[in-house]
Amino acid sequence: MSFPAMLQITPLLTACRNGALTPTDIVREVLARIDAYHAVDPAVWITRVSPERLLARAAELESLSADDLPLYGVPFAVKDNIDVAGLPTTAACPAFAYEAKESAEVVSRLEAAGAIVVGKTNLDQFATGLVGMRSPYGQPHSVFSAEHVSGGSSSGSAVAVAAGLVSFALGTDTAGSGRVPAAFNNIVGLKPSRGALSNYGLVPACASIDCISVFAASTADAWCVEQCAAAPDARSPYSRALAPRALPAGPFRFGVLREQDRFFDGNTYNAALYEQAISQLKKMGGIEVEIDFTPLKETAELLYSGPFVVERLAAVKEFYKNNRQDMDPVVGKIIDGAAHYSATDVFDGIYRQHQLKQIADRMWKQFDVMVVPTAPRIVTKKEVIDQPVVANSMLGTYTNFVNLLDMAACAVPAGFSPDGMPFGVTFIAPALTDCDLASLAGRFHKEAQHTTGLSGTHLMTADDNAAQPAPGNILVAVVGAHLKGFPLHWQLEQEQAVLKATTRTAADYRLFALPNATPPKPGLVRERGFSGPGLEVEVYELSAGGFGRFVAGLPQPMAIGKISLADGSEVCGFLCSEAIARSGKEITASGGWRYAKI
Amino acid sequence: MSFPAMLQITPLLTACRNGALTPTDIVREVLARIDAYHAVDPAVWITRVSPERLLARAAELESLSADDLPLYGVPFAVKDNIDVAGLPTTAACPAFAYEAKESAEVVSRLEAAGAIVVGKTNLDQFATGLVGMRSPYGQPHSVFSAEHVSGGSSSGSAVAVAAGLVSFALGTDTAGSGRVPAAFNNIVGLKPSRGALSNYGLVPACASIDCISVFAASTADAWCVEQCAAAPDARSPYSRALAPRALPAGPFRFGVLREQDRFFDGNTYNAALYEQAISQLKKMGGIEVEIDFTPLKETAELLYSGPFVVERLAAVKEFYKNNRQDMDPVVGKIIDGAAHYSATDVFDGIYRQHQLKQIADRMWKQFDVMVVPTAPRIVTKKEVIDQPVVANSMLGTYTNFVNLLDMAACAVPAGFSPDGMPFGVTFIAPALTDCDLASLAGRFHKEAQHTTGLSGTHLMTADDNAAQPAPGNILVAVVGAHLKGFPLHWQLEQEQAVLKATTRTAADYRLFALPNATPPKPGLVRERGFSGPGLEVEVYELSAGGFGRFVAGLPQPMAIGKISLADGSEVCGFLCSEAIARSGKEITASGGWRYAKI
Repeated sequence: MSFPAMLQITPLLTACRNGALTPTDIVREVLARIDAYHAVDPAVWITRVSPERLLARAAELESLSADDLPLYGVPFAVKDNIDVAGLPTTAACPAFAYEAKESAEVVSRLEAAGAIVVGKTNLDQFATGLVGMRSPYGQPHSVFSAEHVSGGSSSGSAVAVAAGLVSFALGTDTAGSGRVPAAFNNIVGLKPSRGALSNYGLVPACASIDCISVFAASTADAWCVEQCAAAPDARSPYSRALAPRALPAGPFRFGVLREQDRFFDGNTYNAALYEQAISQLKKMGGIEVEIDFTPLKETAELLYSGPFVVERLAAVKEFYKNNRQDMDPVVGKIIDGAAHYSATDVFDGIYRQHQLKQIADRMWKQFDVMVVPTAPRIVTKKEVIDQPVVANSMLGTYTNFVNLLDMAACAVPAGFSPDGMPFGVTFIAPALTDCDLASLAGRFHKEAQHTTGLSGTHLMTADDNAAQPAPGNILVAVVGAHLKGFPLHWQLEQEQAVLKATTRTAADYRLFALPNATPPKPGLVRERGFSGPGLEVEVYELSAGGFGRFVAGLPQPMAIGKISLADGSEVCGFLCSEAIARSGKEITASGGWRYAKI
Repeated sequence: MSFPAMLQITPLLTACRNGALTPTDIVREVLARIDAYHAVDPAVWITRVSPERLLARAAELESLSADDLPLYGVPFAVKDNIDVAGLPTTAACPAFAYEAKESAEVVSRLEAAGAIVVGKTNLDQFATGLVGMRSPYGQPHSVFSAEHVSGGSSSGSAVAVAAGLVSFALGTDTAGSGRVPAAFNNIVGLKPSRGALSNYGLVPACASIDCISVFAASTADAWCVEQCAAAPDARSPYSRALAPRALPAGPFRFGVLREQDRFFDGNTYNAALYEQAISQLKKMGGIEVEIDFTPLKETAELLYSGPFVVERLAAVKEFYKNNRQDMDPVVGKIIDGAAHYSATDVFDGIYRQHQLKQIADRMWKQFDVMVVPTAPRIVTKKEVIDQPVVANSMLGTYTNFVNLLDMAACAVPAGFSPDGMPFGVTFIAPALTDCDLASLAGRFHKEAQHTTGLSGTHLMTADDNAAQPAPGNILVAVVGAHLKGFPLHWQLEQEQAVLKATTRTAADYRLFALPNATPPKPGLVRERGFSGPGLEVEVYELSAGGFGRFVAGLPQPMAIGKISLADGSEVCGFLCSEAIARSGKEITASGGWRYAKI
C-alpha cells in the first residue's frame, strides 16, 4: 500500500493486520521520511535509533501476532527527557546527558503494545520553555514556516508528528509544553490527568505537576496511546489509576473567555478563529458560558513568578551546583530565580495553589469543559531571540494554570489565519475525564473539518460514528413505559439520557402487555426461530453511572440484558420474565408499544 | 431525668424530644459539672462561656423544634485553636491571642445543628505536642491519675469529654493530637479524612495535613458530629466532599504490627492488651494480617525530623519573628528547627511523602484496616518535664504517619492495665472511609465491652448497622460464573466490587446449567409458587458506574433485574432467558452453582 501523508494509527494497523503492510515496510518508510525532512529542519532529533536496530525491532514484531497488539508496528518519537534503554537522555543539555539503562515505564508499555521507538526529539532544555529555542541541538521550526518557532518545550516531538515522520510522539507538559507546539504545528496534544501516566524514567521539570503527554494526528490516536501507556506505578510519586470520570451526556456546556480576557497579543486573525470555534461548538449543540479567568490567571503566575520555580532547581540541584555554566543561559537564569524563595515561601505557594483549586473546582458547576485558545499567537524566532522571556511568557497565557489545578487538557487544530499559520484551541476538563475530553475535542476537530499536521488532509479515520456512544457511555434500548412521552421516561431524563436512534429489534422478539402492571408496560421476549415484524425501540445513551442507577431502579419482573436489533447489532435493552410476559396479551403484531391497542 | 455519667448524644436528644429535658436543664448540669471538676483539674479550660450566655443560648434553642436539629441541646467544647465568635482564640499562647470575629466553619455548622458551645479548652501551644504539658494555662492530667499527662495537643478537649463535662469536643489532629489524648482518657477520638471538615477558622499547625477531629464517648457520637460538621468549603484549601468509600463488610482483614515492631516502651501490660484486642477482632470474624511498618516509620520521621516542621513556622511566621520570646520554650525550639531546611528541601520532602504514599496505598490490597496501639504507653508529667522532646516523640510512634499518608483514623478504648491506666487502639483506613471505619471501631469498642471515659460505664447506644451499600452504590447478587473463584469474577474485581454478603435467593427460584455456555454458567429463573432450597448468591457492592459497565458487558442470554433474597429483601441480580435456561439441565437441588455437579 502507499502511505498516507499523516501516519494515523488505524490505517497502519489495519494494513498490518490484513497483510498489506509489515513493520519492516513501515520502518523503511519512516527512515526515508526522516531523511527527507532533515533537509527541511535538521533540529527535530537529538538521537535517532539506528536503521539496524529499527529493522531488528520490525523483525521481532513480525514474529508476533498483529491482532494481539494495539500499537503493532506503530512508529513513535520520544522527547529527550524521557528514558529509552540504550539511548542517551540529554534533556537538551549535553553536559547533563547519561545513557539510560532502563526505559521509562510509559516507553516500556508502548513497546509492549507493539509500537516502535524511532528516536529522541529535541526540546527546550530541561523542558523549561514554550518556544523550542532553548536547545544547543538546534531550534526546530513550525512545519508551516522556517521563520516561526515550533513551540516547546516538546518541539521535536510535535514537528515529528506534524511532518508525518511518526504516528505519535511523547512529549511532556508542565506549563503547556504538550499543547503549545501542537497548536503551532496543527496537531493534537493530549495532556493526560496528572499521574495517569507514570513519570518513572522522566527527568523532572516540576515534579509535582509534570505530565507525560501525547502528540498525534487525531484525538482518537492520542487517546489510544494514552490508554496503552497508562497504569499505576508505585515508583512514580504522583501516580494514580485512570479511573474514568464521565462528562455529562447531552448538551455540553463550554466555558469561553469573556471579551476582556480575549488576549491574542494583537493577532486579529486568531481572535476571529476563536470566535469561529465557539460558533462551531454551538452548532454542535454546546451551550456557551463565560469563564471568570481571574483565579486561573493568578494560578498561572505561581508557576514562574512564584515558588514553583524552586521545583525546577530541586529537579537538577546537583547539576546546577556543579555545572551552572553548562546550562542554556535563559534556562539557567530562570533556575537562578529559585534562590529568591525560602522554605516557608514554598509552603505558602502550595497553600495558595490549593486555595485557588478550591475556587477553580467550583467553576465546573457552571460548565463541563473550558475551551480556550491554546496560545494567543505564534511568534517568530527573531522575536524570541530579542525577548527570550517575554515572548515565552505570552505563549503560556492559556496553558500555565492547568497542571497546578489538576486538570486534563486536549489541544486540537482550529484553522489557519490568512498568513498561513495555524491556530489551535484547548479543551480543559477536571482530572480523570481524559476519555470524554478527548472525544469531545475530537468531535470538534472533525466536525469543524479542520485538517491535521502539515498534510492539509482531513482526518482519515472516524473516531465516532452515529450510533456509537461516547467512550465510557452505554446505549440502552427501551420498548415500553420509558419511551418518549410515556410515564417512566423521566427516569431517562433524570440521568440526562440522549436519544441516539429510533429503530426495531430483530425479527425473533415477541411483545406482551404485562398483566396488572402499573403504569402499564409491555414485556419483550426473544424466541429463537420466530419471525415477526420486529418491535420499535428507542436507543438512548447514558453515562455508565446513570445507566447503573437506571438498572438498579427497575422493579421485578423487568430485566436488562443484551437485545439484538434489526441491523444485527446488539445493545442493552429491556427484557422481562417470560412466564409473566406470556401470561399477558400478545401485542407483537402492533410493531411496538406505542401502536398497541390494549 | 437524672443525667448519666457520660453525656452521650442519643439519650440527651431523646429526653429533649420527649420533653423530659430542656436545653436549660442541660446547661445547668454542665455548669455544675464543670465547677465540680475544676477542683480535680483546673487546667481543662482556657475560656468558658458565661452562664448568662449559655442560658440565653438554651432559651434560643427552646424556641426551636428539637425534632429538626440533630444536635439539639448537645453541649460541646472547642479546642482553643479553633475560632468561636466573641471569644478569644489563644492557641495556648497569651501573646498570640485575638478575639474571633467569626466562628470557624465547623463551629457554625455544629451550632446550626443545635449544639451548645460551652468553652475553649487547653492545648499544647500551637497544637505542637502530644503531651498536654506545653501550655501556660496549666497542664491537664489524665482523668485517671493526677500524676499522668492527659495527652495532647487536644488535652482539655479529651478531659472534658472523659469527665462527662460535655457530650463531645472538637480537637485537632496533625500528628496524633486527636488520638493520643483519647487513649489516655479512655474515650473515642475520630480523625476525619483530611478536608472533610473545613479548616476555615483554625490556627494552623501544618496546614497541609491539619484535621479538625472529634472526641466523644462512642464512635456513633463521633460520626454523628462529623456528619453535622462536614461540608466542602472553598475557603479551606484542602477541603473536599466526604464522598464515602466503603470498607468490605464481610470478614474484614486487619493489619497488625509484627512482633519486632511491637514497641510499648517497656510496658508489658499494654503489650498484653494489644494482643487481647487482636483476639477480640478475630472473635469478631476479622482476619489478621501483618503490617510492614517500614514505610510508615519513614513517613513519621518526615514530620518532625524533616521539612514538614517548616509548615509550623509558616503558620505563625510573623508572630515568631516578633515574639519568639513569648513562646513556650519547647515549642519555640521545635519551630527554630525550620531554619535548617531550604526551599528545595521542602519539595524533596513532599516528593518523598508522595513516594511513601504510593507504597503505603498498596498495603490496602493486603488488609482493609490497620489496628495499632494508639500510643505505646502513657507517661507521667515528671517524665515529660525531665525529657520534654523524647517523651513526646515516643507517644507519636503509631500516630505520626497517618495524616501525611492521607488516611482516616479512629482511636477507641481497649481496656486498662492493672495499674489503672487506660490503653487504646487506633483503627486506620484509606481516606473517605470514615463512616465504615468508625462503625468497625465502634463494633470493637462495644463487643469487647470496653467502658468509656472516667465513668466505668459501658456504651449506652448501638452504633452499627447491617449490610447497606454506601450512598450512591448498588448491590448485585451473582449466582454463577461471577462467584468468587469462578472464571468471570475478574469482571467484578475490575470494578472494585466489594463482597457484602453470601446468602440465598427466595425459595421460588430454579437454577439451570445453560447449554453450550462458555465459560459454563447457570441461568436463574423465578417461578411463582415453586418451593425450592433457595440458591446461594454472593452480594457485591459496586459504584453506579461500575455496575453500569458490568451490566453493559453481559452477553445474551443473561440479564440483570431485581431478585428476591431469602430474607425478603430485593437486590439486583442475574436472570436469564427462561426458554434457554429451561433447555439446560436443572440443578436447583444442588443449592448453588458452586455445589452443582455438571
